[in-house]
Amino acid sequence: MEKIRIGITHGDINGIGYEIILKTFLIEGMASLCTAIVYGSPKAASYHKKAIGNQTNFQLIESADMAREGVLNMINCFGEEELKIEFGQPSQESGKAALVALDRALADLKDGKIDALVTAPVHNATIETADGTPFPGQTEYIESQVGDGKKALKMFVLDHFRIAVATDKMPLDQIPSHITKETVAEKLVALHNTLKRDFFLDNPRIAVLALNPSQGEIEQETIKPVVDELFKMGVRCVGPYSAEGFFEAGLQEYFDATLAMYYDQGATAFKAIAKQDGIIYTASLPVLRTSPAMGVCYSESGKGEKDEEALRRAIYTAIDTARNRARFDRERSNPLKKQYFEKRDDSDKLKLDQVTEEDEA
Amino acid sequence: MEKIRIGITHGDINGIGYEIILKTFLIEGMASLCTAIVYGSPKAASYHKKAIGNQTNFQLIESADMAREGVLNMINCFGEEELKIEFGQPSQESGKAALVALDRALADLKDGKIDALVTAPVHNATIETADGTPFPGQTEYIESQVGDGKKALKMFVLDHFRIAVATDKMPLDQIPSHITKETVAEKLVALHNTLKRDFFLDNPRIAVLALNPSQGEIEQETIKPVVDELFKMGVRCVGPYSAEGFFEAGLQEYFDATLAMYYDQGATAFKAIAKQDGIIYTASLPVLRTSPAMGVCYSESGKGEKDEEALRRAIYTAIDTARNRARFDRERSNPLKKQYFEKRDDSDKLKLDQVTEEDEA
Repeated sequence: MEKIRIGITHGDINGIGYEIILKTFLIEGMASLCTAIVYGSPKAASYHKKAIGNQTNFQLIESADMAREGVLNMINCFGEEELKIEFGQPSQESGKAALVALDRALADLKDGKIDALVTAPVHNATIETADGTPFPGQTEYIESQVGDGKKALKMFVLDHFRIAVATDKMPLDQIPSHITKETVAEKLVALHNTLKRDFFLDNPRIAVLALNPSQGEIEQETIKPVVDELFKMGVRCVGPYSAEGFFEAGLQEYFDATLAMYYDQGATAFKAIAKQDGIIYTASLPVLRTSPAMGVCYSESGKGEKDEEALRRAIYTAIDTARNRARFDRERSNPLKKQYFEKRDDSDKLKLDQVTEEDEA
Repeated sequence: MEKIRIGITHGDINGIGYEIILKTFLIEGMASLCTAIVYGSPKAASYHKKAIGNQTNFQLIESADMAREGVLNMINCFGEEELKIEFGQPSQESGKAALVALDRALADLKDGKIDALVTAPVHNATIETADGTPFPGQTEYIESQVGDGKKALKMFVLDHFRIAVATDKMPLDQIPSHITKETVAEKLVALHNTLKRDFFLDNPRIAVLALNPSQGEIEQETIKPVVDELFKMGVRCVGPYSAEGFFEAGLQEYFDATLAMYYDQGATAFKAIAKQDGIIYTASLPVLRTSPAMGVCYSESGKGEKDEEALRRAIYTAIDTARNRARFDRERSNPLKKQYFEKRDDSDKLKLDQVTEEDEA
């Protein structure tokens, strides 16, 4: 069986990207789990290696199709260019270097030269985009570049603890107007399909959180009807649960995933439990992407003390989901023709199998 | 040294109140840590005892001043009245019984017959108040009955992990307008004073959370200036931290307390970490009150499977804080006269020692 090809971007060269990459591949056997390709700068890598006293070897390749199994491959995205590294300093140069590597990796991801992408952290404010607009974040950038018009669903993952967020970062008072029946339904179906296809869970159980601490109008008239309707159609979702009571009882352990209504609701609960070990999973896009759920950690840069567990988990999840998705699609690629006529059904309600196909189209 | 006198209300008689009380005092020595007085119904207690096969003895007393050390005392708040118990059923009768016991305990608390109050959970919707308004929650009720015009500060506590909330439960879109400089300053000073007086921490460190996931106007123009100003005046507070990054790094472990900006922010993070072991500490009132941070747990009622750890911790904290507050006040009750003239200070800024005295007045 061919190894899954994982592209890894170096992220912000003044942050902890290289440190966690180098440490991850110091462990024997790690490079044998997948065909790993770092998109970065060998000079920057060597600089970090020396600073933290790391012994990981990497092998330079010209393009992804030359990557070898069993070693850490690196594509030099910068030629002879010297990159100035200043540990812990946000700089235009580090932002530019992050974007160059990301663009190169995304091109290969789009061309199918790698099966999944793992991104090291960047500092959004340092990155200048081609059209001068603020860099929106890696997830949003990936969505816009290789998303093929699809909307990404942000998920936090630590083993079986998975939280997706129905709405993204925004000021608190704007959130309620974004919690519509359409959004909740869209995110629930996207989460259901992700759990089935990417995590290979046959009949996944999903918990839905309430927006407010007390059950009110939005819970009863927006969230609950969607949950009930989708449940009838085969999405095993329950809720809305008050966030406080949900985590008090540890109910997340009884579900395959939880849908939070807003970013901080999901992120705060997740980080409180996962601390630095969690990963971000970018669901619902045609491409696969994971990342350690951490920032650039400027203050820890160059010291060699940063724990790399989250990056390792991000790579494991990238491998698993790439395998799962390929298997899921393969098993459904050539179905038997139906040998019977279905009972006529005049209902105009959404059909789950249609939803799945739509989402995968 | 005289034992601290702790009053314990039975809460909702159809919930898990009696179960956790009876289990807590089954442990030998528990009744010797304090003089414990349950405000309840001996018949209801016996009914629960039998249902869960518990062997804890209690001794009936007529009034709190007759309470004996080393046993579990109980004041019968219901005379010969039979209370109908239906495990797990919300009922008007259980709500009424909860309020009768609470009122009796609050009268004794106000009269100084008990030093601190520990409340078992109630179900607000079942309680009818004298004037027909909805029961606002035990904290608010206690505040209105024996608060002497003071505003309670809600805190969640698990060992050294303490979170207070700057604003209480309300719909999400209403929160930002409640985050004013006055509120943040008031709550920070209240928290500072509570940590000093009730938790006997000499120079407590306080972390302040941001309201929104991204640092914006309210963080920079409302929260940050207050934090900086109070820091200059001797309140060791830092922030605002994004909630996500704060818990990712486990920063709560480096602080004596954290001030969350809204209820769900604090409660969700706290419950995700403390699960069912946490307690609620009602700070800033002239009386002391703690409670296990849990609801009535109707679905678990009468089964004998509920963990009582949170109630035990609520009692420990009630004992500790009662001792601390008495010691704090005693040590300051008869200060030496100042032997020097203070340098004249024309600043019109808040003085911390004045704040402390004001708060204790």
